[in-house]
Formats: sequence, structure tokens, C-alpha cells
Amino acid sequence: MKYLNPQGFLYSAVEAAIKKPGRNDLAIIYSETSANIAGIFTTNQIKAAPVHLDIRRTRNGRGQAIVVNSGNANACTGRQGMDDVQEITNGVARHLHIDQSLVSMCSTGVIGVTLPMKSIRRQLPHLVANLGKCKVEDVAEAIMTTDSFPKISGRKVAIGNKTGRIIGICKGAGMICPSMATMLCFIMTDINVQRKALKTSLRQAVQQSFNRIVVDGDMSTNDTVMIMANGMLGNGEITETAQYYRPFRDSLFGITADLAKMIVRDGEGASKFIEITVNGARTAREAQKAAYAVAKSSLVKTALYGKDANWGRIMAALGYSGSKIREEKTDIYFGKIKVVDAGTATGKDDAATSYLKRKDISITINLKIGKASAQVYTCDLTEEYVRINAAYRT
Amino acid sequence: MKYLNPQGFLYSAVEAAIKKPGRNDLAIIYSETSANIAGIFTTNQIKAAPVHLDIRRTRNGRGQAIVVNSGNANACTGRQGMDDVQEITNGVARHLHIDQSLVSMCSTGVIGVTLPMKSIRRQLPHLVANLGKCKVEDVAEAIMTTDSFPKISGRKVAIGNKTGRIIGICKGAGMICPSMATMLCFIMTDINVQRKALKTSLRQAVQQSFNRIVVDGDMSTNDTVMIMANGMLGNGEITETAQYYRPFRDSLFGITADLAKMIVRDGEGASKFIEITVNGARTAREAQKAAYAVAKSSLVKTALYGKDANWGRIMAALGYSGSKIREEKTDIYFGKIKVVDAGTATGKDDAATSYLKRKDISITINLKIGKASAQVYTCDLTEEYVRINAAYRT
Repeated sequence: MKYLNPQGFLYSAVEAAIKKPGRNDLAIIYSETSANIAGIFTTNQIKAAPVHLDIRRTRNGRGQAIVVNSGNANACTGRQGMDDVQEITNGVARHLHIDQSLVSMCSTGVIGVTLPMKSIRRQLPHLVANLGKCKVEDVAEAIMTTDSFPKISGRKVAIGNKTGRIIGICKGAGMICPSMATMLCFIMTDINVQRKALKTSLRQAVQQSFNRIVVDGDMSTNDTVMIMANGMLGNGEITETAQYYRPFRDSLFGITADLAKMIVRDGEGASKFIEITVNGARTAREAQKAAYAVAKSSLVKTALYGKDANWGRIMAALGYSGSKIREEKTDIYFGKIKVVDAGTATGKDDAATSYLKRKDISITINLKIGKASAQVYTCDLTEEYVRINAAYRT
Repeated sequence: MKYLNPQGFLYSAVEAAIKKPGRNDLAIIYSETSANIAGIFTTNQIKAAPVHLDIRRTRNGRGQAIVVNSGNANACTGRQGMDDVQEITNGVARHLHIDQSLVSMCSTGVIGVTLPMKSIRRQLPHLVANLGKCKVEDVAEAIMTTDSFPKISGRKVAIGNKTGRIIGICKGAGMICPSMATMLCFIMTDINVQRKALKTSLRQAVQQSFNRIVVDGDMSTNDTVMIMANGMLGNGEITETAQYYRPFRDSLFGITADLAKMIVRDGEGASKFIEITVNGARTAREAQKAAYAVAKSSLVKTALYGKDANWGRIMAALGYSGSKIREEKTDIYFGKIKVVDAGTATGKDDAATSYLKRKDISITINLKIGKASAQVYTCDLTEEYVRINAAYRT
């Protein structure tokens, strides 16, 4: 696939001996002019060193470069971890001749091990010198950990007679949960978007995408979504009330939704993509709770892996979800096949079992006690998930 | 092992074609005289038909017989499910010549399928006629589903110059979570214990045992713990202020703790028994939250299966547990090996990895921000867990 790169963004990726040999593991995303920047970060109380730095550095809404490494999370690394991320970002700023406050950093990988600074120091000049020789795809590949494919999505947005571009890349796979995934996501656009509008739209985009996916229910120390808008398209600044806010925002939502679904499809060991919709809940919050309980249930996820239309496990998960349900009202559908009608079996398990042979599955639950809905995406739980995560320090 | 049966309790188990052929699946526990009875039931909003019946029938604190079947949960079976459990318990009452209010029933197995009433009806007379020809071990075996061994624990209690007996049996395996497991537990004693004291001690016993174990975090529709005290020992009634309340209660705690640990050891596919202790939390509730988050984390459980001292996943789970923690204060031990000191690695991962080869593992976390503690038991997450739960309708 060919991705249309927003104007003014340059990329670089090198091998810095952080991951296994033979794979790039250190990358940089750079805008030729300083850009408006917004970030959303993990709510885990344990935050990796780079997350602490980024929260500070994105506060003023301006940024120009993001350094990313895979293979090491630089989390639970204490003082040393903070020193290292400072040294790397300051080094990059020096090589780029920009203010260090404009450089952020993101890390993903194993927790509790300090970065291999010697090889990183050696690679920094090459990393910067290499800018423009790589494509966004190279960065998408360099940030992969247990991901099996790079994740990229782009959109064109008509802004008057100009065409703006937005491109997003991310990495995910394990530890994906309703409060962002073990995931890093970087979104670049040449559209001129006001800082506040950028932040608002990003928050909403994350809420509707990465916060709606579940792989294993764990939440990482490093989760970060960042967007840079460098305005090189030359359009008038887009505020939340501007004419072109909506098309920009909708494209952003499209990109984050694409990327979130790719993460689920690439969930560790996943063999199925599962969409869970809860309708008829009392409140949106209860609809979400119910959907998450089903999406997180190991018993539901293993049954789906086994192509077993075991809706009883869905009923049980709804029952302990904390969302109000009434057994005698609840309907459950696998695809269009109604397997539960008003709390009891319809006898269509054979048709449902056959439906479960598909790779993409949708489960719809109607609680019939209110009007609120929620939708979440998850994958099945497989032996391969266990194998991947039992292996030493993947 | 030889178990000393409390006086006056008779047992029976037969094959009623509910489970696979060749295994008993319908049993009865009967006291020759009516007994004080107490029960604790699932808090899942979806409750199996027998649970609804038992809640009503145990309300007055008297009971004499418990019918149990495995292979079918009689949950999500609507009106038919309620009719069936009524018919079975009333039939048993008739055959036993006792009031139907004295008969309870418990079911475990697949959800959403009605009981095979034809074969159950045929077996009921044999089930009752058979009373006294079986041992408690036979009932413990008849209630097994995915359990790999029957679970029994007994204690003798000196009450003045008499010796009372308590015996408990249970089934568990999957769906074990902090709010009782997919488990049925029956405790019989010949000690004369007042109804209120029986209820109080049972509630506390469950709190400290079955509510402290995690297998897969799911909660079943059928969880039930019941105790019958028939008083045939002839001791003076034990109230909560009586001299012998304490020894009775401590023995009961011992039995439920034994059984809870057996359930974890027999967790579906489990290869390790894991004890997680959190010290130094601000409150008991926060200590529990932190311990449960670690015990429930799929990433922690797979790492332990892989003998990987990946304490970063423990830190991450603590960070999202909802319990207050401070990264720079947290210590983590595998056994006596300190792997995390004040939030960072001690470099003892090799020793820890070697420790993780054991079958019984203890993990101790010291949050060092308060004085509260909690302890929970769990098992690892293995490929075998996935295989068991992916298989059609186990």
C-alpha cells in the first residue's frame, strides 16, 4: 500500500541493539517546522520515564520531533531511566538544532531494564542524519514488539480547495484494555489545527477507538497517543467552531478506529476479531460495563476460540458485570442468529456454531431495560496467547 | 484417606445420564434428623434455578437433604428450570417422607440446557434407596465437572468431653474468582450450632477462603456453599458467645481454607499454586484490590507459567489496580528473593527464575504506604486452560 505523507514530516529508523539483532528499534518522527502537538497518556500509576517527560513537554502544545524505541519500556528504571530519556531527547534536539522542549520520546518493550545507552548514543547521529531516507512504514515497523504486522492508516481531507493529509501509525498486540492499550500511536497531519481543537479531537478519538478495545485486560505503563499538526498545508487555523473542524475530526476518528481494530486483529495469538454490542442498557456507562465484562471474560474468549456457541458464559459475564440486567429480558445474537430469547435458549446453537467458524464475529446483546448502547472490540484467547506471553521476556 | 463422618449423615450417588456415561452425576446428602442449615450464594445477577429455590428454602434455617447434580447448571432455563428443580426436590422429599421445605438442590455444569428429567425421574427412587450405601467420597466424586480430583477436608473438634466432626466437600476448577467460585461446597457437622452462629461463621469462613481465590476471574451463576449442623453429637447449643464457638469456627475456617486451596491447585490447566500477599497498603480494601489485580492479570499468570520473573507485569498490574501505590516505594519478593527494591530492579532475576521452577510460589508485595495486608491464592494461565475451555461445552 502507498501512503500519502503529510507535508513536512520526515522519518528515520535505525538498529540500536535494543531488540534482537536484524531489526530496527530506534526511530524518529520529525516535522520540518515546529507543530502543534497533543498527547494522551496511560492512566496507570506506574508510568515509564518517557511518559513523565512527555507529559511535561507536551503541556505547552508545541513539538517538533518524537523519538521512539521498541524492545525496552524504560519503565521502573528510577532515576537512571529519567536521566536516559533526558539525555536522548536532548541529544536529538542538539543534532536537529531545535529546542529540547520540542522533543518527546516513547518507549515500548520489557519493563525494569535500563536502556542500552552505549549503542543508543552511538546511533543518535545516524538516526538524525538518516532523516528523509525512510518512510513512515519504516517507523511503523521499527516500533513493533510482538506485533505481527505494521499498522498504518491515512486519510485525505478536503479543506476548501486544498487537500490535507493525516497519517497514523501504531503498535499494539498484548496488554490491550479499555483504558488504552500497550500501545504507541503517532498521528501526523499537515493541516493547521489549533492546539485546543487538536487536544479535544484527540481525546474524543481515543475514547472511541483505543478505549474500546480489549485484548487481555492489562494496562501498560507506556501507553501513549500523540498527534502533531504542522500546518504546512497553509489553511486557516481550524478551531472547534470552524467549518473544517468536523471533516478533520471525522478523518481522525476514522484513522484511530482503523488502528484500534488492527490492534485487535493482531492481538497476541488471536484467531478471531470479535465485535461486542450491548443495546438496551440503562445508561451508557452500564452498557460499557456489560460489554467490557463479556469482552474480558476468559471463558467467553476461549469458547469463541473453540467455535462454541456457549452463550451461558456471556450470560454469566453480564450477570457479574456490575451493570443492571434482567435475566428474563435479555436477548443474545451471534451475527443475526438469535441464540437467547428473553433469557432462555432458542435452540439455534448449531447455526450459531457454524457462524462461529468465521474469522470476524459479532455478538449483540439486548438488555431491553433502557436505551443506552456500547460497542467494544476484542479477540479470542488462544493457546498461542499463552505461548507468546509465557516465553521469557518477550 | 479415611474421613470420619459426622453422626447421622447418609450419602448416595447414582448415574442419571446428565454427564458422560460411566460417571455418577446425581447425589444426595441426607441427615437422619432435620438440621440447622445456612447457605451462601452467588452474587451474580443471573442465578440458576436451584439457587433461587435454595435462597427461599434456607431462609428459615432448617434443612435435611441436599440434592446435587453435575453436568448441567440448570441456569438460564426459565420457567422450565424452576419447575424441574421443584419437581426433583419435592420428589426427594416424598421418597424420604420429609417436608419439601427441608430439601435443597444444587447444580453445576453447562448453562442454558434444561435437565434431562426423564432419566432423573427414573433415578430418584434409586437415589433415595441407595442412601447409606455410599460414602461422602462418592458424593465428592459425583459433583466433579472439570475437576481432576475430589476435594474433601475434615476436622475433629473437642466439645467438652465429646468429639464433634465436621466434613466438607467441594467442586471447583474453572470460573474461580474473588466473589466465590464456580463451586459447590457442602459442609456437614454433628455439632449442635445455633442457626445464627452457623450463618455468621459460614459467612466469615467463605470470606477468608473461597472469596480469596482467583482462577480465571469469572463468576458463576451457581456458586453455593451450604452447611448442615444436625446436633447429633448432643452438645449444648453453640452460640456466638459460647465457650466452644471458637474451636468450632476455627475448624470450619480450616476446612474451607483447605478446600479453597484445593480448588486453586486444581484450577483448569494450572501448573502452579501461587500465593500473593500485599503488605503496606493504605486500607484492607486497597490491599485486596492490589492483590486481586495481580492475581487476575493474564500477563502475570502466563509469565509465571513460563517461569519468567517478569516483575514488570506485577508493577503494571499494581499500577492499574485502583489501589494507591507509589512506584518509588514498592518492593516485590519472589519467595524470599527481593526482585524489586523501591521500584527498581535488584538484578536478582536469575535467582528468581530458578525459584519459579517450583510448583508452589509465593509473591510478596510491600507497598510501604500503610499498614493493611491481604492475601489471595491463584494459579497460572496455561495452554491447557485454553484447551479445556475451548472444547465444546465442557
